[in-house]
Amino acid sequence: MKSRLHFDEQLLSRERKRLLEQIEKEQEHIGYYSLPNQDISPILEFAQSFDDTIETIAVIGIGGSSLGAKAVYEFLRPVKKLKRRLYFFESTDPINIESQLESIDIEKSHFLVISKSGTTVETMAIFKYIYSLDSSRDRFTFISEEGSKLDQFAQKIGATRFHLQESVGGRFSVLSVVGLLPLALSGVDVVELLKGASRIKESFFNDGYIKELLLNKASFYAKNHAIYNINCLFAYSETLRYFIQWYVQLWGESLGKKQRHSAFNVGLTPIGLIGPKDQHSFLQLIMEGTRDKSISFIEIADFQKSLEIPDISLPHLEDMDLLNGVKFSDLISMQSQSVLEALLEEGDIPIDEIVIDRVDEASMGELIYYYELLTSLVGELIDVNTYDQPGVEAGKRILKEKLEKRKKND
Amino acid sequence: MKSRLHFDEQLLSRERKRLLEQIEKEQEHIGYYSLPNQDISPILEFAQSFDDTIETIAVIGIGGSSLGAKAVYEFLRPVKKLKRRLYFFESTDPINIESQLESIDIEKSHFLVISKSGTTVETMAIFKYIYSLDSSRDRFTFISEEGSKLDQFAQKIGATRFHLQESVGGRFSVLSVVGLLPLALSGVDVVELLKGASRIKESFFNDGYIKELLLNKASFYAKNHAIYNINCLFAYSETLRYFIQWYVQLWGESLGKKQRHSAFNVGLTPIGLIGPKDQHSFLQLIMEGTRDKSISFIEIADFQKSLEIPDISLPHLEDMDLLNGVKFSDLISMQSQSVLEALLEEGDIPIDEIVIDRVDEASMGELIYYYELLTSLVGELIDVNTYDQPGVEAGKRILKEKLEKRKKND
Repeated sequence: MKSRLHFDEQLLSRERKRLLEQIEKEQEHIGYYSLPNQDISPILEFAQSFDDTIETIAVIGIGGSSLGAKAVYEFLRPVKKLKRRLYFFESTDPINIESQLESIDIEKSHFLVISKSGTTVETMAIFKYIYSLDSSRDRFTFISEEGSKLDQFAQKIGATRFHLQESVGGRFSVLSVVGLLPLALSGVDVVELLKGASRIKESFFNDGYIKELLLNKASFYAKNHAIYNINCLFAYSETLRYFIQWYVQLWGESLGKKQRHSAFNVGLTPIGLIGPKDQHSFLQLIMEGTRDKSISFIEIADFQKSLEIPDISLPHLEDMDLLNGVKFSDLISMQSQSVLEALLEEGDIPIDEIVIDRVDEASMGELIYYYELLTSLVGELIDVNTYDQPGVEAGKRILKEKLEKRKKND
Repeated sequence: MKSRLHFDEQLLSRERKRLLEQIEKEQEHIGYYSLPNQDISPILEFAQSFDDTIETIAVIGIGGSSLGAKAVYEFLRPVKKLKRRLYFFESTDPINIESQLESIDIEKSHFLVISKSGTTVETMAIFKYIYSLDSSRDRFTFISEEGSKLDQFAQKIGATRFHLQESVGGRFSVLSVVGLLPLALSGVDVVELLKGASRIKESFFNDGYIKELLLNKASFYAKNHAIYNINCLFAYSETLRYFIQWYVQLWGESLGKKQRHSAFNVGLTPIGLIGPKDQHSFLQLIMEGTRDKSISFIEIADFQKSLEIPDISLPHLEDMDLLNGVKFSDLISMQSQSVLEALLEEGDIPIDEIVIDRVDEASMGELIYYYELLTSLVGELIDVNTYDQPGVEAGKRILKEKLEKRKKND
């Protein structure tokens, strides 16, 4: 991975010291930092000896329990022959549940029920429904915190259980068993995924090039969070379609908070974009709209595809001969560079770029850890608790009241 | 459709008069207003007599040439047995082009090449590639402005052509031949789609209930555009996944502009969300983040599905028995209402809601026209040209320079 800022920023040395001390301290109780170095042999063994007749792994999970695995799986799927399909049941929309169920064969499927707390309403509602269709314990594997009610249930029925450490939050859990188990079962090389993450971790904590870059990038976002309150991630490949959704959750849910030492609501709003498609959708707003957005480009250095535009001239369309003989991979690179340069010409839009090597596990591991670290740094600088989400409780409380009222009226 | 604002707003009568006069005047040169009343018999006849051996309609188009048809098609697909699949080639990403081509049988496919100007780089690059694989003219139908270079080419090779009127902009073209042709070929009832749009049009222009509602909603967004510069559309059904992408283009590209009579960059930033999934991703930021967002809910009144959570009690999970016997359609409604009430409790987040009757063509037609009108109203009030997109030209110019330079170096 290469990464480069097109704006000037230098974190002050006193702030720098304090920030690094905080991050050092966080590592004692925030679990995601050490995930690249975990022992994953239980996951690998489980995947290796898994029933070969199972064709589909269906994840019943939502938010942090699905977005990470989905991002990695959908990134690799178009280029890698994977062993099993991954499916995600993430909605209570009955139309969606029905059409998802129609497209899998339950007899050839295995369900991973994933909920950190074990009491996620959507997950439990869907699980109950599917369990009523087939209640054999071998059909299910459960991932939850040790001792949660879901974990106790799984133990009671004698199903396989995996545990997510309490110190790893849902949106930071893709490199834990939550993401690794479905990925390993589908045939993704999770060892390589962790290797990529390790590279970024090493570079950051051992004074590699990524350290100053991330510190300065975080500093810029934090210092200017009231001006550039929107951060766009403009990824130039369809393979990153779900990665940007993972980023939206990570960024939005981590950084949209009440400040710890003030009365203020703060937050950086994430927007995920895919190029070149969204040049035809969102670029106009970036170029000419309110100056409230920073833009990060993600590009792929080597698409490993030789597909090219044929060298044919069509009557009346001779203007398009400029494209003849151009590889699509070169075209898309030129497109992202053209947009980047056009935005730089404006002079008042903060731009940076990330170039990953290719579409493989290690590159995705790098991207994931890069964004997790960046999120932690910004969170610390804008004085929020990066790892909680108290704002979602009110909705849950009201839903519970509605369900109780409904039951009473029955 | 029902629609309701949870904030107080009253457009001043002088402004109201001026705005309505402007919209009246716009109808003379902005084509989308009259699309609900157009004669679509050529489209219907073409679809009716279309080759039965064709199983896949592949749209080669990007932005306004694909987002609308995709929104409607993906909305209906899970509930309606459609005659043909729709595919969309929207990217120059070589990985994407290859995997899309692998999943269709060219012999059983028909390609719709859609570009208003006829010179869209992405569309022409993909078209050239596919044309080099199969250059029989019967394999393609072309939709472009009459007399464009693409139209001239299509005429030259003797292929079928349809024309988009110059007065209909790409992002307002879903109810023109651009959206209707692929939809009619796939088996969507486009007559019903237009009927839905007509209902909203009638209600607005003949003093129906939608008129004051849209005027006041537009007034609120425009007046507060510097405070609530982000508009979130929170749609509670997976079927609306692509509708929100269509909305993002419509809103962002129409309203992100330099003002006509000032030196300022203005813009309202659209964000599309899907419930309940994004409760686990974006809700925290809305609840506790910076107060820069308005939220519009879209709900479906009748999912027409009886799927329910089974009445079973599981050991250790008895807390979840509250869900027993609840229909999923009731659960998702309770979820959206719970989030809406939680946000209202905050007191400083502007909320409104739209309830469509069901997942069918007429409801989608209503939604489309509702948002088109709202966009026109807000654009007029914040003093931008709603219908152009000058900001995307710089990137195109730079790309052309890069391609020319490359050619010279060859």
